[in-house]
Amino acid sequence: MVAEFKLRNKDYAARIRASFERQHFMSLIGAQLTKVAPGGVEIQLPFRKDLTQQHGFFHGGLIGTIADNAGGYASFTLMEASDSILTLEFKLNIMAPANGNLLISRARVLRPGSRVTVSQSDIYVVRDDTEYLCATMLGTFMTMPDMSDDPSVQKTR
Amino acid sequence: MVAEFKLRNKDYAARIRASFERQHFMSLIGAQLTKVAPGGVEIQLPFRKDLTQQHGFFHGGLIGTIADNAGGYASFTLMEASDSILTLEFKLNIMAPANGNLLISRARVLRPGSRVTVSQSDIYVVRDDTEYLCATMLGTFMTMPDMSDDPSVQKTR
Amino acid sequence: MVAEFKLRNKDYAARIRASFERQHFMSLIGAQLTKVAPGGVEIQLPFRKDLTQQHGFFHGGLIGTIADNAGGYASFTLMEASDSILTLEFKLNIMAPANGNLLISRARVLRPGSRVTVSQSDIYVVRDDTEYLCATMLGTFMTMPDMSDDPSVQKTR
Amino acid sequence: MVAEFKLRNKDYAARIRASFERQHFMSLIGAQLTKVAPGGVEIQLPFRKDLTQQHGFFHGGLIGTIADNAGGYASFTLMEASDSILTLEFKLNIMAPANGNLLISRARVLRPGSRVTVSQSDIYVVRDDTEYLCATMLGTFMTMPDMSDDPSVQKTR
Repeated sequence: MVAEFKLRNKDYAARIRASFERQHFMSLIGAQLTKVAPGGVEIQLPFRKDLTQQHGFFHGGLIGTIADNAGGYASFTLMEASDSILTLEFKLNIMAPANGNLLISRARVLRPGSRVTVSQSDIYVVRDDTEYLCATMLGTFMTMPDMSDDPSVQKTR
Repeated sequence: MVAEFKLRNKDYAARIRASFERQHFMSLIGAQLTKVAPGGVEIQLPFRKDLTQQHGFFHGGLIGTIADNAGGYASFTLMEASDSILTLEFKLNIMAPANGNLLISRARVLRPGSRVTVSQSDIYVVRDDTEYLCATMLGTFMTMPDMSDDPSVQKTR
Repeated sequence: MVAEFKLRNKDYAARIRASFERQHFMSLIGAQLTKVAPGGVEIQLPFRKDLTQQHGFFHGGLIGTIADNAGGYASFTLMEASDSILTLEFKLNIMAPANGNLLISRARVLRPGSRVTVSQSDIYVVRDDTEYLCATMLGTFMTMPDMSDDPSVQKTR
Repeated sequence: MVAEFKLRNKDYAARIRASFERQHFMSLIGAQLTKVAPGGVEIQLPFRKDLTQQHGFFHGGLIGTIADNAGGYASFTLMEASDSILTLEFKLNIMAPANGNLLISRARVLRPGSRVTVSQSDIYVVRDDTEYLCATMLGTFMTMPDMSDDPSVQKTR
């Protein structure tokens, strides 16, 4: 029995979209925030040659990047408007080469908490219009109370 | 008591430098392979604004990227000339914000094996000329026998 | 898309029951192997006072024990009759205190492989006839070809 | 640069010894708390046949048990007298079979924090009077403010 997700911030989706926009690294690699729901987030990353490792597949660092990012934002959907979020740690199992034209990370909260949230991301690679499970991530995310996710807000305090 | 590292490929350094060069993603982010020794590798990543997360620090995905990459290459230094390498999994603990002008990942092999190697990377952020421990990674890497790290070699088989 | 599980050993259930019987530590703590299916295993552990940590709940080490054991045996169901199995690593997230009269670990294979299998276990604690999600484990298990799981068989070789 | 450990509770050693005593599971398996220092703890576990897995070695669950326990208590040495401690998660890499007559877990704090502490344990197996590195654990432990480690104290509130 898992408690149903309780929303503490009705503007969770707008906040996450704004936060994602401020991540310049997401823009550099061309990642897109494709779904935001209570306790769940999806990020997509289209293939580009400058995203590859030595065998020509998506680099493992990018699998971890969108796994962590989707897991963190899934956790963030359930936090207060006054909270910020921090990745404490994550573990990534790579189960197949990321050989395809699109990478999709789908994250869901396993256990929300006032101080710590646990989320899991499944990462799929799309090849010939078929999704293949490529990796899974289990991560722990900490609530930072009374700290804005937007540094420009902090500066004006 | 840990057995001393046994080198199975005297050209390990040249192989790793060539492999790093083929990782287009390393070039995109400006990462540099700064040290290669038996069982140990260092990667550096200078700060750029397009590498940041929402608070203006190095993105966590990049901490994971150079942690995994250094750990993998540290493991690869001890493998046969005919082997390739695969990241099975890694776990990253982020212990402080990556707030600085340079990120350094130093990896060392904890336990080499013919089939599986375990390595650890410590990631430091440099701020005001001082190194601060920012994260640590523990990863498991698999030997892929008779598979070249260079895909152009595979194609000619 | 995940490939369906392929059984390589029709006597997988008998082998796992016999292996579990040889684990004297399972007998010491009173753990029971309650389900064995292709790619899935369940282990139960009834509460006893000598299994507790300082707050009187099931000790965390026991959560890890039945999580790892169920994940390993779930992986073992899909291996050849001539294979043995080894835990390479596992990661456990404890999400709630194991406060109850029964602990249940349910494991499933996420990705079988000839050399390495990835499995996940969800651990529930039963309190007042209700199951509560208590922990989740993500683990990596290696196939050991031509090595019997039964040491008495090895000795006669 | 890692900040030196700051002691917040001068009676840390007595508190940890008392907590260890209340863990009935430690008594069941015969584990001993052999060292307690600021930021570091050692636990030893002598071999017994009822602690074994199917090959006759120490069970992997016990490696995890003393790894987690030593890592948690190492973290606890640095916490306030009014704090309790919780394992959020740990990851264990098993690097060699635990084949020997004694298991030793040595833990050290990597990064103390007011809310979260990261610790690492190295686990050695002793065989023929020689220590062999058998496993390593990286774990995350949360401070629980104003909650006694001793449940009998809580009850009187």
